[in-house]
Amino acid sequence: MKKLGKQTIQFDNPPTILETASIVGPKEADGPLAKYFDQCLDDELWGEKTWEKAESKIIKETVNSVIAKSGISSDTIDYCFAGDLLNQCISSSFGLREINIPFFGIFGACSTFVEGLSLAAVFTESVAENVLCAASSHFCSAEKQFRFPLELGNQRPPTAQWTVTGAGSAIVTKSGTGPFITTMTTGKIVDMGIKDANSMGAAMAPAALDTLITHFKDTGRTPNYYDAIITGDLGYIGKDILIDLAKLQGYNIKSNYNDCGVLIFDKSTQDTHSGGSGCACCGTVFSGYFFNQLRKKEIKKLLLIATGALTNSTTSQQGESIPGIAHAISIEL
Amino acid sequence: MKKLGKQTIQFDNPPTILETASIVGPKEADGPLAKYFDQCLDDELWGEKTWEKAESKIIKETVNSVIAKSGISSDTIDYCFAGDLLNQCISSSFGLREINIPFFGIFGACSTFVEGLSLAAVFTESVAENVLCAASSHFCSAEKQFRFPLELGNQRPPTAQWTVTGAGSAIVTKSGTGPFITTMTTGKIVDMGIKDANSMGAAMAPAALDTLITHFKDTGRTPNYYDAIITGDLGYIGKDILIDLAKLQGYNIKSNYNDCGVLIFDKSTQDTHSGGSGCACCGTVFSGYFFNQLRKKEIKKLLLIATGALTNSTTSQQGESIPGIAHAISIEL
Repeated sequence: MKKLGKQTIQFDNPPTILETASIVGPKEADGPLAKYFDQCLDDELWGEKTWEKAESKIIKETVNSVIAKSGISSDTIDYCFAGDLLNQCISSSFGLREINIPFFGIFGACSTFVEGLSLAAVFTESVAENVLCAASSHFCSAEKQFRFPLELGNQRPPTAQWTVTGAGSAIVTKSGTGPFITTMTTGKIVDMGIKDANSMGAAMAPAALDTLITHFKDTGRTPNYYDAIITGDLGYIGKDILIDLAKLQGYNIKSNYNDCGVLIFDKSTQDTHSGGSGCACCGTVFSGYFFNQLRKKEIKKLLLIATGALTNSTTSQQGESIPGIAHAISIEL
Repeated sequence: MKKLGKQTIQFDNPPTILETASIVGPKEADGPLAKYFDQCLDDELWGEKTWEKAESKIIKETVNSVIAKSGISSDTIDYCFAGDLLNQCISSSFGLREINIPFFGIFGACSTFVEGLSLAAVFTESVAENVLCAASSHFCSAEKQFRFPLELGNQRPPTAQWTVTGAGSAIVTKSGTGPFITTMTTGKIVDMGIKDANSMGAAMAPAALDTLITHFKDTGRTPNYYDAIITGDLGYIGKDILIDLAKLQGYNIKSNYNDCGVLIFDKSTQDTHSGGSGCACCGTVFSGYFFNQLRKKEIKKLLLIATGALTNSTTSQQGESIPGIAHAISIEL
């Protein structure tokens, strides 16, 4: 593998995404992508007593599912990279505590899924045969932790996004027949001073822009190289901002760009305001829908840019702005 | 680099730890290792309005210090791996938001520092020239978040440990003259059912044991191969447990084993009960004391095992046990 510019790696022997799996909650099951997910839950608790325990169960079962679907033995998985939005990443560490695989906890907020795939690609290219990645989020546990208790019934402003309940998981393997991770562009932290914790798309769009433009410059590619350019969870507002900001820099992405947070819910029938968000937004939409499209060759070249807001409720209360980050990988047949 | 067994990597061209830096708080400055730290603060706030902002400043200035000491330009640093104990790792992401280096957020609780060094070693061995690692913790922000407000003046049980205020940082480089990271053994999550959030050493000791024994088996080394075997923050109680558990498995580590949480405070004059803890415990004691010992050739072969408790206050309230993890690297001249 070699560096292209300061932020991009090109893989000489591109690792294969061997298999993916996804489990989603009931609201996602009512959305337009329902048929692409491996499992749709009837309720947010899935038989558990708390939302946190439910989220741990979701990531655990998603990982079990991807291992079962892949046909490989879990003994042959060298490393696991996983993370989530809960304090101290407890969904991952509790959900995966029985997995018995060397474990690296990661935190990139909602960019975690692609952070994991990036690290997995470097590891499989250099030292590992198979690497497991997983990320989860849960609407109820996230609202409780980052905003207000659901029982309060607070109103949400139109800029707010709806945290996806679910988990996505993928196994990256050294040698395979694709889809291949061909490049990765690792984001820097970008903070443009947005302070509204109910406008995460606006806070993260500048980070997505930075990674997107850097990716084009480092690789020499242009937007039309890709069949699809997909961000993780900018939602409707962040998506429009990214299109506008990219245009100002001379890149027209309007025709082939979309966002997982826009795709996962139906704007007209599901009241999610600016769309979906959370680690599971990119995680489930990629693992469910886009991996399917790649396998069917409906999409042959995908640029996946997961976006994260590196904030918590304390920093908002202390008047801090919201740093964003975005990690990109290109996936090609 | 090549895999030894399931959890260990041996580096063919071992990366060098080029430089380290450490900043600590006032209690650490009263401890026996004070002279080894780059900077000792007079108070816990360092001119900031909140403990969280102070912790961000500490990690930021520690990183600035390691870059300045190393003599390399920050432009030549390819990646940064950083993490901390605060919710959503805000110390790292706020402290390092102006660093302008591709950023991977990591979370391994108090094992974060060695998790970062492990990932840095793989990256420098395969694709990067220079990689920056950092980890921080802060007694006041940690107590507030994980336990009780300091203003309550709660009593602490004898098994409790004292979170180290400070940050450690290191730059790992592809080619250098050592000290070299020669092997890494990545931990699995180990949960033996300990539920007492005031007895973290006991909760983490089984994870440390698992990584320690695995390291010996994978590498064929024995305890006396090393001049020093050092764990991150098992404290007095966890240290004794690890010695006993290792002995039961046939490994006598008593003569050359110690723990950063035991070393950083003076048991007779500083009231820290079972010793120090936190990401900064291993981070500062390695970056300050042990790196100095390696440079002076007082120690030539070091096994550093950072230990983490992957828990939060919600899981304790929900009756969960405390999963532990431990990551090891061997550092040799």
